[in-house]
Amino acid sequence: MSKLPQGLVLASASPRRRELLLQLMPTLKLHILPADIDERLIVAEAGTDRVLRLAQAKAAAVVANLPIEFQNYPVLAADTEVVLAGLPLGKPESACHAVELLEQLSGQSHQVTTAVQLIKGKLALQALVTTEVSFKHLTKAEIVAYVATGEPMDKAGGYGIQGLGAAFVTGIKGSYSNVVGLPLEMVYLQLNKLGYTVI
Amino acid sequence: MSKLPQGLVLASASPRRRELLLQLMPTLKLHILPADIDERLIVAEAGTDRVLRLAQAKAAAVVANLPIEFQNYPVLAADTEVVLAGLPLGKPESACHAVELLEQLSGQSHQVTTAVQLIKGKLALQALVTTEVSFKHLTKAEIVAYVATGEPMDKAGGYGIQGLGAAFVTGIKGSYSNVVGLPLEMVYLQLNKLGYTVI
Repeated sequence: MSKLPQGLVLASASPRRRELLLQLMPTLKLHILPADIDERLIVAEAGTDRVLRLAQAKAAAVVANLPIEFQNYPVLAADTEVVLAGLPLGKPESACHAVELLEQLSGQSHQVTTAVQLIKGKLALQALVTTEVSFKHLTKAEIVAYVATGEPMDKAGGYGIQGLGAAFVTGIKGSYSNVVGLPLEMVYLQLNKLGYTVI
Repeated sequence: MSKLPQGLVLASASPRRRELLLQLMPTLKLHILPADIDERLIVAEAGTDRVLRLAQAKAAAVVANLPIEFQNYPVLAADTEVVLAGLPLGKPESACHAVELLEQLSGQSHQVTTAVQLIKGKLALQALVTTEVSFKHLTKAEIVAYVATGEPMDKAGGYGIQGLGAAFVTGIKGSYSNVVGLPLEMVYLQLNKLGYTVI
């Protein structure tokens, strides 16, 4: 089957989201235009409200300033949050903070939620995907050694399931790619609705 | 933390198992020595008996012929099987067979089981990890287009969750890396028992 090259604007600077999209669509003409928005927590905003708002804000910011050559491309944005016992954990602000986050995750299950927003012209598709992730009990030595690798620092919750962090995860329930940062089965459904031939 | 380079013999030709091991241990000195064994089904052999026997046979075959320079390294072998309603599916023998396998998986949940065998000297560690994988309902057009990409051909069950196949998986329960071909959290535990510093 021959396919025409298809284009998409990804409103994210995350190299992991870029890799996931190319896993699904290896021939995709992908244009990266990260959104510059204020991601600060609004007080009293529930976890899913926040990821939905941020995914929407990222997509809207990029759509509002879309260069003329990308006007015909859909814009995809996403926001991912790690939630433990109802509280969003955010990204570690320091090595000490990363140790604290991992101590909280140790021996527990938490939720990873991604909001996906896809905009093409007047059509806006939004979806929310949650995966449960279970961690084994971590020793202090394991946590300290893991933080020393540097891997936790730019990641929500302080770990990367697609890296060394895989050693700490006893199992997940739901979408794996969602935990990495973009739920591929949902993106596939959304792109199909736009008439894209993914597979 | 500085670490000495650590060595391991992987008794598998699978590039996916190699990549998974390097995800867990990026500095690992990995030596690939695939085992040449008879993988034919023995009649009346239960699914888990078979993967355990094959993982054991692969490790034993490589240990028996281990070159002198690798005598001090542990040998890791694995065998993965996709089981639907109690029946192992195997790898597709043709494009038509791949279409049949995917038609069976469509809209259903199946089990992926990997047996892992790690041998170092007289110590042999064996483990079995099972993950449940749920597929969305696939249209005939999706199946035919997917088979045309060639991805299903060398994979148990006829799909790759780490490739385009991710679009078909609505969710998993358990270890993701197990579905790719090597359960990393289990390998981590086994290597720790041998005194390896993984993280």
